[in-house]
Amino acid sequence: DTNFDLKEHPHSRLNILTGDWILVSPHRTKRPWQGKVEAVQADDRPQYDPACYLCPTNKRADGSENPDYKGSFVFTNDYSSLLLNTPDGGLNEDELLVANSQKGICRVISFSPRHDLTLPQMTTEEIAKVVDVWQNEFQDLASYPWIKHIQIFENKGDIMGCSNPHPHGQIWAQNSLPVEVAKETQQQKLHFEQRGTSLLADYLALELKKQDRVVFENEHFAVLVPFWAVWPYETMIISKRHVTSILYFTDEEKVALADAIRRLTIRYDNMFETSFPYSAGMHQSPVNSGDHPYWHWHMHFYPPLLRSATVKKFMVGYEMLANPQRDITAEFAAEKLRGLSEVHYKARE
Amino acid sequence: DTNFDLKEHPHSRLNILTGDWILVSPHRTKRPWQGKVEAVQADDRPQYDPACYLCPTNKRADGSENPDYKGSFVFTNDYSSLLLNTPDGGLNEDELLVANSQKGICRVISFSPRHDLTLPQMTTEEIAKVVDVWQNEFQDLASYPWIKHIQIFENKGDIMGCSNPHPHGQIWAQNSLPVEVAKETQQQKLHFEQRGTSLLADYLALELKKQDRVVFENEHFAVLVPFWAVWPYETMIISKRHVTSILYFTDEEKVALADAIRRLTIRYDNMFETSFPYSAGMHQSPVNSGDHPYWHWHMHFYPPLLRSATVKKFMVGYEMLANPQRDITAEFAAEKLRGLSEVHYKARE
Ligand SMILES: O=P(O)(O)O[C@H]1O[C@H](CO)[C@@H](O)[C@H](O)[C@H]1O
Ligand SMILES: O=P(O)(O)O[C@H]1O[C@H](CO)[C@@H](O)[C@H](O)[C@H]1O
Repeated sequence: DTNFDLKEHPHSRLNILTGDWILVSPHRTKRPWQGKVEAVQADDRPQYDPACYLCPTNKRADGSENPDYKGSFVFTNDYSSLLLNTPDGGLNEDELLVANSQKGICRVISFSPRHDLTLPQMTTEEIAKVVDVWQNEFQDLASYPWIKHIQIFENKGDIMGCSNPHPHGQIWAQNSLPVEVAKETQQQKLHFEQRGTSLLADYLALELKKQDRVVFENEHFAVLVPFWAVWPYETMIISKRHVTSILYFTDEEKVALADAIRRLTIRYDNMFETSFPYSAGMHQSPVNSGDHPYWHWHMHFYPPLLRSATVKKFMVGYEMLANPQRDITAEFAAEKLRGLSEVHYKARE
Repeated sequence: DTNFDLKEHPHSRLNILTGDWILVSPHRTKRPWQGKVEAVQADDRPQYDPACYLCPTNKRADGSENPDYKGSFVFTNDYSSLLLNTPDGGLNEDELLVANSQKGICRVISFSPRHDLTLPQMTTEEIAKVVDVWQNEFQDLASYPWIKHIQIFENKGDIMGCSNPHPHGQIWAQNSLPVEVAKETQQQKLHFEQRGTSLLADYLALELKKQDRVVFENEHFAVLVPFWAVWPYETMIISKRHVTSILYFTDEEKVALADAIRRLTIRYDNMFETSFPYSAGMHQSPVNSGDHPYWHWHMHFYPPLLRSATVKKFMVGYEMLANPQRDITAEFAAEKLRGLSEVHYKARE
């Protein structure tokens, strides 16, 4: 039927990175919202909070004292989900009860000594220093030969489970490949074997030609709403150069990545004039497990807000039991993000 | 190492139904919670709310008027995510942009004319009538030859995206297999081909022998915390008889299912003496697509509360980018659920 229109009709889209499908219901934004309204997060934090375990010179749960740091500050998570000294072992009862020991290291990175900032309120130079720390940490963690995967991420905002508003991120490194990374490994490998090219390089070339889903680009990175986005304003930062991990970024690329993060998160904050919550994180090559030439570094942003600063998209019921589902198209979201200013709304006041 | 202990050490567990792994961090409950605290949902609703689009005799968005119904009431969702008249079509640009038209029917089922009730506050007889409606709806929707999958589910509580507290559930039926159902189909098929038995029948037999994760059972159903549970107090209802779908339940089995749902949801409400939020839904055989003798009917309950009526588990950051992760073991959760009364805390007052 020639009447089928992605802008109007319910359809499924393939996530080429994971192989999963998502359901898109473009007509569904007309639904009135009578459900849960989130509280707007208080946004008047002091530069220094004596009760914050991330502020310089304060005490932490393990009894130690934070240094009077100036840029970033990295330490091992006092409540790590993965531990260094877990004994090896496992269980397999008739292939029905199957478990494996997991070993790992969890670190916390304070992005700034300033309790009141967030990434979009920091300068490109300051964010570039955070990128430096991510690169160093990746290198350091990869030096443990048993570590196979390093997940760098940030939870921003209390509706994203962030338990401290001081700007910070986390790294969880472990001895096995997490589910999402295993899927992306398989899909990128398949494409590379079939075509000899990077899946994301080919995808990015097509998107840059079309422009429908591109939000902006700088010399080294493009920011776009992926065709298969699940979250309302989900985006990806993709490196224009095909590198397998953050290890290979040059100084110039690191500044360009900081620029991309800054401009994207400012647009996010400007969307509903609120500190925009999200979970964000990098996907990159596994380590200490041979060559993965097909892996292409990228960073995902998964923000939950849908209609306003207080109405989010719920991934529940149908989504948990059956299939992720979204109410606006990726193209609509990209257009909205493209139209937003790159001057932070608070800097305008 | 013989020191490895599932009760103490971080480990991964295999979900044999989907093939995915989950990360368990048993030691992590010691972490103090400084993050988001949910509002306790108001729980003093009138029996009839003139503003509710589910109450008898009220007006709905499409202008129609609800009948003065006595048991359950079913109608087509006024804001359906899937529509009946979507034209066929799709897109495939170089295997990079791939989409397919989706056609379906979304229905809403009011469980009771009473605005103030929830399933755990209804009688077994009343819930058995809801089970009847589910069976009839399944049969009716399966009579459309193009429908391949029927998802019956309930979102309960506003933190689960439920936009109306009137007791109700939904059914989304569509022309393709959702991701989660496709995974369960594959895993059950594999097991059936290898052993000639139902994966869940074999799993259930093992669990009933061990008892570690069983919450309770009646003549026809067992309720347990699956070995691979992701949500803190996640459970499954599994039918003791291997049937592929709700179509095949006898009258006696339908009453037993109502009994299982009632007793489970009462235990849930008693956990934190609050109306316990969850998304719940059945998984069963695809329809109109040949025989699926390996499919074994079951029902999942995914409740988010972790520590109290106001502190939930956030599936964010690491979980979205890498792998689901939980802080208490399935065995601990089962023990807690086993210890709870089957008399609703409100009925005790
Ligand atoms: O259909 P409702 O109740 O308006 O909406 C709720 O359930 C749907 C199906 O699980 C979800 O897609 C929505 O995000 C959620 O808010
Ligand atoms: O480590 P935090 O910030 O205390 O906790 C937060 O992030 C973790 C990693 O994404 C999640 O497992 C937790 O559910 C979330 O609350």
